[in-house]
Amino acid sequence: MIRFYSPNIVEEQILPPEESLHCVKVLRHKENDIIEAIDGKGYIYKCKIWDADPRCTKLEIIETTPWIKPWKGEIAIGIAPPKNPERLDWVIEKITEIGVDEIIPVVCQRSERKNLKPERLERLIVAAMKQSLKAKKPILTALSPFNELILKYNSWPQKFIAYCDEAKGKDYLCKIMRPGMDCIIIIGPEGDFSKSEVELAISNGYIPVSLGECRLRTETAALTAVNTFHVIGGLNS
Amino acid sequence: MIRFYSPNIVEEQILPPEESLHCVKVLRHKENDIIEAIDGKGYIYKCKIWDADPRCTKLEIIETTPWIKPWKGEIAIGIAPPKNPERLDWVIEKITEIGVDEIIPVVCQRSERKNLKPERLERLIVAAMKQSLKAKKPILTALSPFNELILKYNSWPQKFIAYCDEAKGKDYLCKIMRPGMDCIIIIGPEGDFSKSEVELAISNGYIPVSLGECRLRTETAALTAVNTFHVIGGLNS
Repeated sequence: MIRFYSPNIVEEQILPPEESLHCVKVLRHKENDIIEAIDGKGYIYKCKIWDADPRCTKLEIIETTPWIKPWKGEIAIGIAPPKNPERLDWVIEKITEIGVDEIIPVVCQRSERKNLKPERLERLIVAAMKQSLKAKKPILTALSPFNELILKYNSWPQKFIAYCDEAKGKDYLCKIMRPGMDCIIIIGPEGDFSKSEVELAISNGYIPVSLGECRLRTETAALTAVNTFHVIGGLNS
Repeated sequence: MIRFYSPNIVEEQILPPEESLHCVKVLRHKENDIIEAIDGKGYIYKCKIWDADPRCTKLEIIETTPWIKPWKGEIAIGIAPPKNPERLDWVIEKITEIGVDEIIPVVCQRSERKNLKPERLERLIVAAMKQSLKAKKPILTALSPFNELILKYNSWPQKFIAYCDEAKGKDYLCKIMRPGMDCIIIIGPEGDFSKSEVELAISNGYIPVSLGECRLRTETAALTAVNTFHVIGGLNS
């Protein structure tokens, strides 16, 4: 099943150029064909093509269905971009596929990378959203300083911080998270969070957690954290 | 913490060329320094360097410790290599980090890729094993035809097959797996398993499972499956 992405479909009733090309040239859709489109805001549109133009396919919306998000509560993840940008690319693709609501790239004291290419990441997010048949695009925020992130999510009911030091004293995320409630987890950079960052998080109600006994790369930790929320949610569904 | 990989350390008491270079040139270790090495077979060796040769560092083993695998039972995964070889690279890296005992690349009826570069994959496995502080290397088998894989693991107590069709009728893996017992799960190619493959698996005791409500790429499915075993194992630890 293929769904086309048209972020302003209600206002414009068209497919954007790249999607038009794919629809008309690659998949050879013709006038009067019925296709499905999503707006990335949570709706699925059944549409009839009335002008199969490969630069700007024009549509008539014949049915609008809200997409039912298959998990309860909001899942947000703060992640310090790894040094190697490809590792951020793939973790963003993968957590979008698995399911996440908000992705907050964060700059920490020991971050080696302090810039991002949000356009590239947005494209990966759109592709992964389509691939995994979601209709709502996770929010990718701008790169945030660690302190701002901590304060911004202060009112959330479940806040976790995953780090490596003193791993023995921490609970497993899977054991202490409560499914179905909004949750945020922050994953540090290659050199881990600084002591003062961990203290700031804890003093703001973040609970230190372990993701398991094995030392994981930043991007692997982010991925296992998001999947853990879904496994625990699935157990309780 | 850095551990060097020396697969024949007991017989040879050396570091192989690449590890010697890293140890002596990059990390500037000298004679009489104490380092740790692993053999990929489950042991950690505390060693004293007695010849810091960047081509062949010679060691004296002063202590041998068995590595305690942090999960119970064997975890095996059969995976049809995705069309794009980079996607296999990274899933193999990631599941090695998260923890797996056996990786079986499998050729299915709808596989588009029917060859592999095992040397490259072995290098990725070794790097991920070192990175995640394991001392035992997952076994990477040769590419197996689907039917052979099904028969080879026939005696295992938990056998699962994950596929997309008729998703509504299947149990979630996280709900039916029993932690601590050997388990194998097979993940199909981009075009999914054929009907006859699914039937063969079911008639050999494989249980159809779903990994969740979202359609996942082959490599993402493999990764979430392996992580699910660990989350359920962690819950019961």
